[in-house]
Amino acid sequence: MTTTTRSEFDQGIALARRPGEPGLYDGELDAGWQIGGGVNGGLLLAVAGHALSLELGEHGEHADPVSISGYYLSAARPGPATVRTEPVRQGRSLSTGTASLSQGGEERLRVLATYGDLAGAEDDVRTTARPPQLPPPEECIGMEHAPKALIKQAALLERFDLRLDPSTVGWAVGQPSGNGRIQGWFRLADGREPDPLMLLLVADALPPVTFDLGMPGWAPTIELTVHLRARPVPGWLRVSHATRNLAGGYFEEDAEVWDESGRLVAQSRQLARAPRPQ
Amino acid sequence: MTTTTRSEFDQGIALARRPGEPGLYDGELDAGWQIGGGVNGGLLLAVAGHALSLELGEHGEHADPVSISGYYLSAARPGPATVRTEPVRQGRSLSTGTASLSQGGEERLRVLATYGDLAGAEDDVRTTARPPQLPPPEECIGMEHAPKALIKQAALLERFDLRLDPSTVGWAVGQPSGNGRIQGWFRLADGREPDPLMLLLVADALPPVTFDLGMPGWAPTIELTVHLRARPVPGWLRVSHATRNLAGGYFEEDAEVWDESGRLVAQSRQLARAPRPQ
Repeated sequence: MTTTTRSEFDQGIALARRPGEPGLYDGELDAGWQIGGGVNGGLLLAVAGHALSLELGEHGEHADPVSISGYYLSAARPGPATVRTEPVRQGRSLSTGTASLSQGGEERLRVLATYGDLAGAEDDVRTTARPPQLPPPEECIGMEHAPKALIKQAALLERFDLRLDPSTVGWAVGQPSGNGRIQGWFRLADGREPDPLMLLLVADALPPVTFDLGMPGWAPTIELTVHLRARPVPGWLRVSHATRNLAGGYFEEDAEVWDESGRLVAQSRQLARAPRPQ
Repeated sequence: MTTTTRSEFDQGIALARRPGEPGLYDGELDAGWQIGGGVNGGLLLAVAGHALSLELGEHGEHADPVSISGYYLSAARPGPATVRTEPVRQGRSLSTGTASLSQGGEERLRVLATYGDLAGAEDDVRTTARPPQLPPPEECIGMEHAPKALIKQAALLERFDLRLDPSTVGWAVGQPSGNGRIQGWFRLADGREPDPLMLLLVADALPPVTFDLGMPGWAPTIELTVHLRARPVPGWLRVSHATRNLAGGYFEEDAEVWDESGRLVAQSRQLARAPRPQ
């Protein structure tokens, strides 16, 4: 493998260049990233995003995703996966490329993305966005209190140190708020610090907001776009997920990720299929 | 041309299949859709989206964009353009494909999108989103009152019947509100009624929200994703554009489009480059 470290996340997105096949990478989807029967969509986006980072960052400084869109085609399973990347345009400050993640010849995820250098981001910040107001992590609800049925379906929760705002976890005890919002503190259980690729995982890490609408069941992602707005500093991340429009069998889920310095580091939106009535 | 009608928009997105070259279409970008020196990004998305509609709708019922992401690579100019489409996956309820819009061999726009049948959308609507509160169209500000310098840079405004909420047009007289929000009523000047492809234009039709932050100048789109949430009924559309985070030289612009029945028919987000100080 060209990239290995000891953190679970770095192992999860590790890729080896296939010798003699430019742009082709081999990886392994670990069973520990499963949720609801498939491998988590945020982890898949981070795997494909990692391949593009290696590809677009190779001849320049464009190793950070700035905007990345993933279209989910079929459920990924634990086991080997390949990522084929293709550059689209190499620019001065931004480069664009595509990636296709497949297993056994079946495509799981197609990605289109633009990369740049987030370290070079200008300091001008004029934002009206405010981080979610959360009780301190020690007063939030850790996953050790999650319903057993949820943990069983979501192996990946054991890799997260996720502390949900008590005001947004009524669904876990049969009392969803109906607001369509879940928020909390996030870090990886093994202490691996956040970086742009890890934010791709975080954008799809919280339970579906439909839980808070009283709709249990998994909500398959159709499309997920993440905008990376700054490099995160080490420490806790604050994450909010919310939906405003469940209609016609689909809903959007907007996520915001804030770092410990109080900066909005990622904004994402996904379109997902509403859970089927159970 | 395989598709021609008399409306300016239908002429603008008209495409002819290139004989003997499956998936390849020829079109013509009209000078009337220019803004700030290039052809409007929403119109380009509608042209590429039209090609995918012809391609993915051909063998099934998947003629409506459900989620479409455009990555803008270089400024488009009036003149001939080609769109090359490629199917990615044909599913039961959704199909995915890519499109590439080029001029003279230079790629302008790469698109990744999933199509389906919006007419078959389920009626279950649980939305907390509310349409923007606007004075009636006759009490809003038409483009005949726009600054001459704006009209000169934005030929396409003459094709719109755009009536902006007076509370969000202070920027036109040197008094931007600083809220980062512009909203108003929209319809096409020639009366062409809305449909899903037209909503792709509408998602990028209002002046950049940075005008309302006191930053004149054009804001090139990096990426624009539109989620189509329902088929619009005929009549006026209500459109809001807003940003919450201008930082590091970029800002996001969230648009919502509501139809005359009061339904949220499209949600979009774009990442754009902040205007350079003038």
